[in-house]
Amino acid sequence: MYRPEYLRNFTIQIFERIGCPAGDARIIADVFLKAELQNLPSHGLMRIKNYINLWEKERINTKPDIKTIHETPGTAVVDADGAIGMLGAVESMKLAITKAEKSGTGWVAVKNSNHFGICGYYATMAIEHDMIGISMTHANPTVAPPNSIERMLGTNPIAMAVPASKEPPFVADFSTTPITRGKLGVAAKKGEKVPFGYVQDKKGIPSDNPDILKKGGSMLPLGGDIQGGSHKAYALAGMVDILSGVLSGANFGPFIPPFLAYLPLPEIQTGKGMGHFFGAIRIDAFQKPEVFKNRMDKWISTLRSSKPVEGEKVRIPGDIEREAEIKNIKNGISLLPPIQKELKEIADKLGVAFYTEV
Amino acid sequence: MYRPEYLRNFTIQIFERIGCPAGDARIIADVFLKAELQNLPSHGLMRIKNYINLWEKERINTKPDIKTIHETPGTAVVDADGAIGMLGAVESMKLAITKAEKSGTGWVAVKNSNHFGICGYYATMAIEHDMIGISMTHANPTVAPPNSIERMLGTNPIAMAVPASKEPPFVADFSTTPITRGKLGVAAKKGEKVPFGYVQDKKGIPSDNPDILKKGGSMLPLGGDIQGGSHKAYALAGMVDILSGVLSGANFGPFIPPFLAYLPLPEIQTGKGMGHFFGAIRIDAFQKPEVFKNRMDKWISTLRSSKPVEGEKVRIPGDIEREAEIKNIKNGISLLPPIQKELKEIADKLGVAFYTEV
Repeated sequence: MYRPEYLRNFTIQIFERIGCPAGDARIIADVFLKAELQNLPSHGLMRIKNYINLWEKERINTKPDIKTIHETPGTAVVDADGAIGMLGAVESMKLAITKAEKSGTGWVAVKNSNHFGICGYYATMAIEHDMIGISMTHANPTVAPPNSIERMLGTNPIAMAVPASKEPPFVADFSTTPITRGKLGVAAKKGEKVPFGYVQDKKGIPSDNPDILKKGGSMLPLGGDIQGGSHKAYALAGMVDILSGVLSGANFGPFIPPFLAYLPLPEIQTGKGMGHFFGAIRIDAFQKPEVFKNRMDKWISTLRSSKPVEGEKVRIPGDIEREAEIKNIKNGISLLPPIQKELKEIADKLGVAFYTEV
Repeated sequence: MYRPEYLRNFTIQIFERIGCPAGDARIIADVFLKAELQNLPSHGLMRIKNYINLWEKERINTKPDIKTIHETPGTAVVDADGAIGMLGAVESMKLAITKAEKSGTGWVAVKNSNHFGICGYYATMAIEHDMIGISMTHANPTVAPPNSIERMLGTNPIAMAVPASKEPPFVADFSTTPITRGKLGVAAKKGEKVPFGYVQDKKGIPSDNPDILKKGGSMLPLGGDIQGGSHKAYALAGMVDILSGVLSGANFGPFIPPFLAYLPLPEIQTGKGMGHFFGAIRIDAFQKPEVFKNRMDKWISTLRSSKPVEGEKVRIPGDIEREAEIKNIKNGISLLPPIQKELKEIADKLGVAFYTEV
């Protein structure tokens, strides 16, 4: 078990060593740590290696000049200057909140960015301002549209965070596929099979092999097939790609640069880097915040107390992650042995101390 | 086959007879006709009977005074005064567009409304203004959260319409369940079974009986079960309910008044009537519209030309409905014999002419 603060300081040092200013390294570490605390290791420290690899190939910029390149009182486009995703994301979500303070709502599209970790982190930033927060991002093409065998869209997650009064906030944060790309990779590494509906082979035949992407296969949208409603999640993933990619001026669809540094950049570029989209909605632009938050308490307690299937528990979006966070802050964070080994190698290479438990 | 104009005039007369002003009846008829033209009969004229039944029980107001009760430059809350859903919806989407013209984006939450027909109708209104349109609504509780056996949320559809240049627009419009409530009802009427993943029985056991809702069963979110990702569609349905219901001041969750007039109103009311949520995003608040629309052309043509599964065709959200509309405008609209019979009965009762083909 690692103390969260130990891993946080370690991560800060790693990113400082590759050239990030101290403040930037702290932001990056905070987002990584939140993923570990919320039991989302697929978005946690195991991703550090990907960023280091991208840095070695000079595909990320550790001294970015993040700039607003177009704006109105309630909207903006931000050029993240090739930054590590969390940096443009935090700055843009802050900008959306500032714009909402003046204009009721604020909406910021970001281009020239990279992977930003857990999507819900940014939406949640709005809550303390009595706002509803929205965040979304497109991702590397791994998903085939219904009736297609070509990887055209990412897992394209979307998040919305809503404050309540006595109840904890509602925090929806989900990819538009049955599982995330990261979790699929974990299943592949463990040699496990996955349920049908997650992936298909290169001819479009349903598969239970999580490693099928290496053989020309593709992920499927939530719903699995058209009978199961996969055209609906395809439409939602398209919405995320249009707002994050087309509207921001980033690449989109199959043109998004890969997160894996050993994969070549696409020959055609339709914009700059990756994109995200953020929104903040001031509650009092619609309703008295106290009234709204009491209504949210009622919504949450009503849903949570709905009759369960025997032996099960009904949850509100955000419950599982919050429960994990409370537990992990107290008990510490465990890292799988191969991740510890990987982090130790990175630490040695960059001259940072890291102890392993194995 | 009926000429669209015949059915439109018929629908206008019906709603005039129950007291709607001529302009209101035209709006209602336009939305119904659009559903028939787009081969979405579950949201078409077969729903007229539901509205007539609600009118007979005095649960809808045919002379509504639709009012903006709270606003900022970019947001508003509208009280639809118990109107037939299409009326508050069209007025509120227009208001969102007007606000976006001045403020970059416009967001309108509506309460005290009723069912509004096809969700995509309203989002699409934004396109001709070089805006992205967003519309959503909650609906009667028919869906159980994951791990629950209680109907707490509706099929809660969401729509987004995006203009392109040479390509037709992107129009996503989908419920957060594998199929709509209307289509489930059609399967039940035909005595057909449905795939597992659509519904469960009163104990939470998966069922293939579309009529199971009458026996205490419930619909399931898109994904079918947690393994299939149903917690993600549950989160999305929650987002729609919070924006449409909690933020607007309408009822929400299981407290939404039923669309079927023979069902009693819930004992507890948490607000007024049903709610919706509309948004308009001015493209030039982010990017030059010509540039954006050319980028959308590229997005659409790229996705559409992705490699298909052998013998299949890859489509863009909105393609199927638009193709149906072109065909039906030319060839006419066919109505199932039982729907013709139902409409004839309504016509006779209200003293309106209606010919049947059967």
